Amino acid sequence: MYYIGIDIGGMSIKGGLVDEQGVIHVKEAVETKPERHYGEIAKDIAALCKRLAALGNVPLSDIKGIGMGIPGTINSEKGIITYANNINFSNVPIVEELKKYIDIPVKIGNDANCAALGETAFGSAKEYKNIVFITLGTGVGSGIIIDGKIFEGKDGAGAEAGHICLVLGGEPCTCGKKGCWEAYGSATALIRQTKRAAEKYPDSLLNKIIAEDGKVSGRTAFKAAKEGDEVGRRVVKRYMRYVAEGILSLVNIFRPDAVIVGGGVSNEGEYFIKSIQKFVTRYSYGGKINPYVKVIRAGLLNDAGILGAAALCL
Amino acid sequence: MYYIGIDIGGMSIKGGLVDEQGVIHVKEAVETKPERHYGEIAKDIAALCKRLAALGNVPLSDIKGIGMGIPGTINSEKGIITYANNINFSNVPIVEELKKYIDIPVKIGNDANCAALGETAFGSAKEYKNIVFITLGTGVGSGIIIDGKIFEGKDGAGAEAGHICLVLGGEPCTCGKKGCWEAYGSATALIRQTKRAAEKYPDSLLNKIIAEDGKVSGRTAFKAAKEGDEVGRRVVKRYMRYVAEGILSLVNIFRPDAVIVGGGVSNEGEYFIKSIQKFVTRYSYGGKINPYVKVIRAGLLNDAGILGAAALCL
Repeated sequence: MYYIGIDIGGMSIKGGLVDEQGVIHVKEAVETKPERHYGEIAKDIAALCKRLAALGNVPLSDIKGIGMGIPGTINSEKGIITYANNINFSNVPIVEELKKYIDIPVKIGNDANCAALGETAFGSAKEYKNIVFITLGTGVGSGIIIDGKIFEGKDGAGAEAGHICLVLGGEPCTCGKKGCWEAYGSATALIRQTKRAAEKYPDSLLNKIIAEDGKVSGRTAFKAAKEGDEVGRRVVKRYMRYVAEGILSLVNIFRPDAVIVGGGVSNEGEYFIKSIQKFVTRYSYGGKINPYVKVIRAGLLNDAGILGAAALCL
Repeated sequence: MYYIGIDIGGMSIKGGLVDEQGVIHVKEAVETKPERHYGEIAKDIAALCKRLAALGNVPLSDIKGIGMGIPGTINSEKGIITYANNINFSNVPIVEELKKYIDIPVKIGNDANCAALGETAFGSAKEYKNIVFITLGTGVGSGIIIDGKIFEGKDGAGAEAGHICLVLGGEPCTCGKKGCWEAYGSATALIRQTKRAAEKYPDSLLNKIIAEDGKVSGRTAFKAAKEGDEVGRRVVKRYMRYVAEGILSLVNIFRPDAVIVGGGVSNEGEYFIKSIQKFVTRYSYGGKINPYVKVIRAGLLNDAGILGAAALCL
């Protein structure tokens, strides 16, 4: 049996023909062109699905479902995209629309929720049924899996862990509030923290690295720290604390089997993950009386979007 | 059909014979004497249950279940009290023990979780299946109801929302970490905040009220604020912000139907609840795009412990 995973982004719509083991047999992408009416976009998605099936030599009747991961607030029950700012969608009945063009069951979900589900189906969390997944990128995304299923709150408006309070009244967040975890723990925040440190210490190695690279990225401070720069080391240490404190809040609330960390910053690897694990183990509520929560790096890298979306159909 | 609700505290064990409508027909209490072996305490609880049935003229065969609410970490699946510091219990198989003395099904739960369930069964949240319940007392307790059932995390170690981060690196918390919500939003924290303000402004009305009352309580600052004292008003305003920020974090994570607020401080009534509602409505993620979350005062007051425990058996 096969599934199709569709990963919708502002620039492109990626699709993959996926089997039950999470192997992607065929992969294709089309431009999103989000300025169009959603009907046109739905037509393109249907055509993409048919092309994937044809390229994979799989009859449509062997495709059990189409899963779509969308960056935004999703009412998965009603099949409606409530709001997705970077594809310009507001109250779009995408499932109904897609059914006009293709006769395969369609499921939709928020992209971070899909990624979380994908990790339990095909990634680092295969042995777990209760996980908290976070992704450190432009923002801090999160997906909660309880008893093997996505938890998304009323009308899909929950699981927005990037917007828990971390520093009351602190840095302004894109959501309109101050002090959100996202404003401290995202890659965007790390870049801001790196720039500030560089300005404050113009003679640091951090500054030299920035001059060489011609820009500041989420990797800059880690790079400086690895080369022994004290300024870079301090930025990294503080940033990891921000990430760890947010994860700890989620551990105390959900006490999951594991926390899965994805997104660009998680590529810093074992050093980063171990530091978070240490903090979580030391400070989680009840200490050793309560069950240990493992912190693990996400397993699905570039294909997380497609595989996570496909996992909606399992 | 009847149920028995047992509310175990450090000082006393309260029991009630409860019907399906949440009416308590008979109520009794015995001393806990927590220094004893748990076998002795279980015997007392069994005797209390039999006495409640006898006083209510209800045969034991008409009692469908015994529910027990316990302050601590509870493994409800295994029927074990993992840890409850104020009754000195650690890894106590209380359900198994109780079965030696009485032949009625027994369920156990953490007291805040029970209180949350009780609100959905008999209290302010009867029309809701997804709520976040918080209680502002010595600490900040919480109970999460998802789809009508208690969510408690692995081995019952979750739903500890009092220990989410509110002010990174802030006030020390009893859990060993700094900056927990509990260290800002509990009645204990409010008392500390009131004392500090009184010390800082010795000529304030707040100080006069403290002198008159002979002590500082969770009500002192509210009382001063109501009498027009600026110092008291500032303490209350800041405290309500602390409470509201923590609730907002939970709203962004769970997006429940409603948040139910209990505990001594919630007796400050409409003014308090309305202030939290305003903050939550204004700042919850996604604004008006996402479903409105109602903030409601807890409905079960003094009998919350018994009714919440009984609700475990429904």
